Amino acid sequence: MSASKNTSKKTMDVGEPTLKRREFLSVGGATIAGAAIGGGALEGAESVGLLDRTLPDEELQETLADVEAMTFDVFGTVVDWRTSIIREGQMLGAEKGFELDWPAFADAWRRGYGPAMNRVRTGELPWLKIDDLHRLILDDLLVEFEFPAMTEAEIDDLNRVWHRLIPWPDTVRGLWQLKANFTLATLSNGNVALLTNMAKNAGLPWDVVLSAELSGHYKPDPEVYIKAADLLGLPHEKVMMVAAHKGDLRAAGALGFKTAYVPRPLEYGPGRTIDTTPDPAFDVNATDFMDLAAQM
Amino acid sequence: MSASKNTSKKTMDVGEPTLKRREFLSVGGATIAGAAIGGGALEGAESVGLLDRTLPDEELQETLADVEAMTFDVFGTVVDWRTSIIREGQMLGAEKGFELDWPAFADAWRRGYGPAMNRVRTGELPWLKIDDLHRLILDDLLVEFEFPAMTEAEIDDLNRVWHRLIPWPDTVRGLWQLKANFTLATLSNGNVALLTNMAKNAGLPWDVVLSAELSGHYKPDPEVYIKAADLLGLPHEKVMMVAAHKGDLRAAGALGFKTAYVPRPLEYGPGRTIDTTPDPAFDVNATDFMDLAAQM
Repeated sequence: MSASKNTSKKTMDVGEPTLKRREFLSVGGATIAGAAIGGGALEGAESVGLLDRTLPDEELQETLADVEAMTFDVFGTVVDWRTSIIREGQMLGAEKGFELDWPAFADAWRRGYGPAMNRVRTGELPWLKIDDLHRLILDDLLVEFEFPAMTEAEIDDLNRVWHRLIPWPDTVRGLWQLKANFTLATLSNGNVALLTNMAKNAGLPWDVVLSAELSGHYKPDPEVYIKAADLLGLPHEKVMMVAAHKGDLRAAGALGFKTAYVPRPLEYGPGRTIDTTPDPAFDVNATDFMDLAAQM
Repeated sequence: MSASKNTSKKTMDVGEPTLKRREFLSVGGATIAGAAIGGGALEGAESVGLLDRTLPDEELQETLADVEAMTFDVFGTVVDWRTSIIREGQMLGAEKGFELDWPAFADAWRRGYGPAMNRVRTGELPWLKIDDLHRLILDDLLVEFEFPAMTEAEIDDLNRVWHRLIPWPDTVRGLWQLKANFTLATLSNGNVALLTNMAKNAGLPWDVVLSAELSGHYKPDPEVYIKAADLLGLPHEKVMMVAAHKGDLRAAGALGFKTAYVPRPLEYGPGRTIDTTPDPAFDVNATDFMDLAAQM
């Protein structure tokens, strides 16, 4: 918990000169597995490296106080797609009696996602729900990874693993804290049905399910964010985009959204080197959803 | 509680010959204030009039078992717009020191809604969110009912009473029961922001907020229902429309939706004569949301 934690949205503690600069933990792989950073973490901060960052000044605090809704990227930010796919793959393999490199399969499935979206963007494919894009990629991977014969129902069920992704350990608790003060919305390339089923399965307390599907564009196309703010009935500056992906935040920020960066160093598995450094261009840099709730 | 109540979606009790015909209470104004009809109601049924209705046969029970999602009309079906507007009007009058006929005001506001939608349907007005339609009507009523001078903020807040409508007494409990087995969605002419704010204010546990706004048409235009089923990722026959308005159900039913009729005899206030008779054309006729949950 940061020393300058705001205990309520309405009574913000910004004036203490000794808190003029906020210090927070840099986010290293060792600290991020997802659990909230509890009391006392700050005391040990020097040992894991401190990052100096200009404390949001009073103007920025007032700006944050204007936020009424938060829109969340989902795959990677809210849920851990990789662990989920690996686990369901292992269960499928155990049930049907085969083995394969499930982490490699999960990574390949996810890697196919950007190129598949681009085939829609370029007009090579018509508009497709992510469910259909996932299936296109999966059909290729069933061959590439030499799956045993599966029924259509089994393949469809495997494709729906994306409807059953599991949250990061801090996700549900953090969302409930944020829900008290903000309207919480998904804003994902996942289609509405996928996001709805995921929320019901994982206990994600969204107030409203918004999706790229509602604009007929994929993030980071501006239409997605513009449509979301319109549906929320809010000017862009009253909406905060929350994501583990800087490109998503930059696209939203360019349209006037507030931005909160929550890195997920384990999104692509342990031992990967990915950029998780905080960036002062974002309104908030948080270590996880509990920290985000504390900062808002 | 009907004697043939199904205690779970999966273990349906349809075989008892003595229950071959379901008897249930006709819905009179005296019995409907919203509370669930408790045990023992059936015993007294003859005194308030029984309606014979063919018990759903096994085929229909199997059909109901296929339902995966329920889409709910909101104004009148889920929430009591009239009582809500009267109460907020009384609070506004007490605060600003004026009186007027709030029931007449509430009725006039609601009465303006159909004609306002038709001005959009005919192209006289561009597509407008219901918030904007409500404001158009309200601006006229402020003059007609001789409101005192109000600031823009006060008028906007009054217009947003539709975001704060209160549920019928059985609504929240009934929705929570249904939520265990079905995906629950709004399907209202209310815009997404209105429905989202209403749910947050009233504790309505929707899994997803769907709206006429997402199709750019108002109910009962078929585009609204078609878009909803598409977003839910379900064939029409796996979606059940729930409404207190038979026209809404007929429009959904004509497209293959299942239908559940839940009359709200007090929607337009006490002492009104409105058609609340059950209709065997609908898959389910229920007295309230608790009874609906019991029948599903």
